[in-house]
Amino acid sequence: MATSEFDIIKKYFSPSNNRSDVVLNGGDDCAIVTPPKNSQLAVTTDTLVSGVHFPPETSACDIAYKSLAVNFSDLAAMGATPAWVSLAITLPEVDAQWLDEFSKQFKTILDEMNVALIGGDTTNGPLSITINAIGFLQDGKSMQRSAAKVGDKVFVTGSLGDAAVGLRCVQNKVNDDALSDCITRLNRPEARNEFAQSLLDFCDCAIDVSDGLLADLGHVLSASHCGARLDLSKIHLSDALQHYFKCYCENKIDWSLIVAHGDDYELCFTVAETDVSRVYELADKQGLRVSCIGEITKNKALVCMDERGQEVDGFAEGYLHFS
Amino acid sequence: MATSEFDIIKKYFSPSNNRSDVVLNGGDDCAIVTPPKNSQLAVTTDTLVSGVHFPPETSACDIAYKSLAVNFSDLAAMGATPAWVSLAITLPEVDAQWLDEFSKQFKTILDEMNVALIGGDTTNGPLSITINAIGFLQDGKSMQRSAAKVGDKVFVTGSLGDAAVGLRCVQNKVNDDALSDCITRLNRPEARNEFAQSLLDFCDCAIDVSDGLLADLGHVLSASHCGARLDLSKIHLSDALQHYFKCYCENKIDWSLIVAHGDDYELCFTVAETDVSRVYELADKQGLRVSCIGEITKNKALVCMDERGQEVDGFAEGYLHFS
Repeated sequence: MATSEFDIIKKYFSPSNNRSDVVLNGGDDCAIVTPPKNSQLAVTTDTLVSGVHFPPETSACDIAYKSLAVNFSDLAAMGATPAWVSLAITLPEVDAQWLDEFSKQFKTILDEMNVALIGGDTTNGPLSITINAIGFLQDGKSMQRSAAKVGDKVFVTGSLGDAAVGLRCVQNKVNDDALSDCITRLNRPEARNEFAQSLLDFCDCAIDVSDGLLADLGHVLSASHCGARLDLSKIHLSDALQHYFKCYCENKIDWSLIVAHGDDYELCFTVAETDVSRVYELADKQGLRVSCIGEITKNKALVCMDERGQEVDGFAEGYLHFS
Repeated sequence: MATSEFDIIKKYFSPSNNRSDVVLNGGDDCAIVTPPKNSQLAVTTDTLVSGVHFPPETSACDIAYKSLAVNFSDLAAMGATPAWVSLAITLPEVDAQWLDEFSKQFKTILDEMNVALIGGDTTNGPLSITINAIGFLQDGKSMQRSAAKVGDKVFVTGSLGDAAVGLRCVQNKVNDDALSDCITRLNRPEARNEFAQSLLDFCDCAIDVSDGLLADLGHVLSASHCGARLDLSKIHLSDALQHYFKCYCENKIDWSLIVAHGDDYELCFTVAETDVSRVYELADKQGLRVSCIGEITKNKALVCMDERGQEVDGFAEGYLHFS
């Protein structure tokens, strides 16, 4: 007997948790939700296509992890608290084991984040996952790309470049235990929602680093009509990344891997100089590393200095999906 | 030079209309919207995959039309007023003419419906379109699958079966002007939002007919713990459909085409017998045909009588995407 899409949805993607603001959850033409009073909603949609956004051999668990993280990362960039997600999944076949692993990981993350799966669609075709995520912004507060001000300090969370090296490892089948953290970063990015929400008190401008620092900061500069001067040596490099440069790049830092590749999902944000200490306090409290990597300038250019204090140029502009 | 996804999004999918409840529309990590006071939101997601949900030769305009209509139809089934949509589109290549046609048709429909495109994602891969649509439900009123009551009359809007014949025409390359309306119904279904919203006053139970009347009414019966007895001869058959049965089916009605195939996107709903006249009044006012095709029964079975008053059986259960 044929397996219908209804059976699949029922079995694997039934609602996993209860939020009191979810009035009707699955099993009808739409979900019904109640938005909180005096709030705005942040809405984002991201699609991951097999072979484009993740290597085809990526595990079901990792795909579940990444597909949620990239959307939560968009919500983090606005300072929004994730609340509800819809999942549109296109599958080449009904693979019970794959579906079991994917859905379990998916639900585990939603439970941890107190987010409800409120519906979706299951279709037959080449593997791709589209998630629509909705988050709350209380009292009209948000961080936006257009809010950087001349003199602001530019910060970035965590470390950059690990996912780019992770992708190289997977593609070139590099088998080096010292680089395993990079593959984890590629497959399981961590959205910075908690930190982003606490930043809202004094930060107006943020973006998530999904297409490479320069491309994403470039969007901020363009929307805010300003420039920036970055000291690349201030970007934190993980031990794994340093190992990679040492052993696979003749001990030279390949800056393009760090600032011009995608999939970091760290937060880049700007704050007034007077609030710099608050950033470090917050980060310290949450056990998160942050680095002040430069300053917003009136001069509408993005100037990068390397570890020797020399201006660097000629990076590819982010990660182009159509190249 | 490579065309980046940002260029595509900017050029073709920039916001086309202004709603005062859209605070930030595109150009950031998320859209920001303000939900109306004292309302609930209906949220739905539908994916259309080329070759699965529409024939690969379908025009860009028709794909734009259908991808919105199927989502608006889900909102109609709840009685929700469409407000905001997100578009996740996966494209095998950057085809300027295709994108131009698709986006113009897409925006035209949104403008006509006073709906805002609030964001989305453009990715590279096999052609598929996922839309997330959000609509408003005022004062907690909605129509749900679980609300059918024994004794309710079962109604369906418009005519059924046309899209199924349209698909046959396209697949078998039948070239018959008298059937062109069927192809239009396949490619350009009309969501019944206006009618659905006015039904809310006295109707609690509706579903849209997307997978075939029997499958969809079956969901209602299952959720409402009841059955139904249908007089299939009460279903309106379009002139084109009658022509098809006459000329291509030896003048016999193929009921499976009418009740067990997908893509009708009509509304099936149930009302108390005392409200039947209100249904006809409303439909008359809006120039929409409605047909009373049966009654909800205590006996948990879906019984269908044909035009000769004989019980019919053995229909395939709707349209299975994995068959």
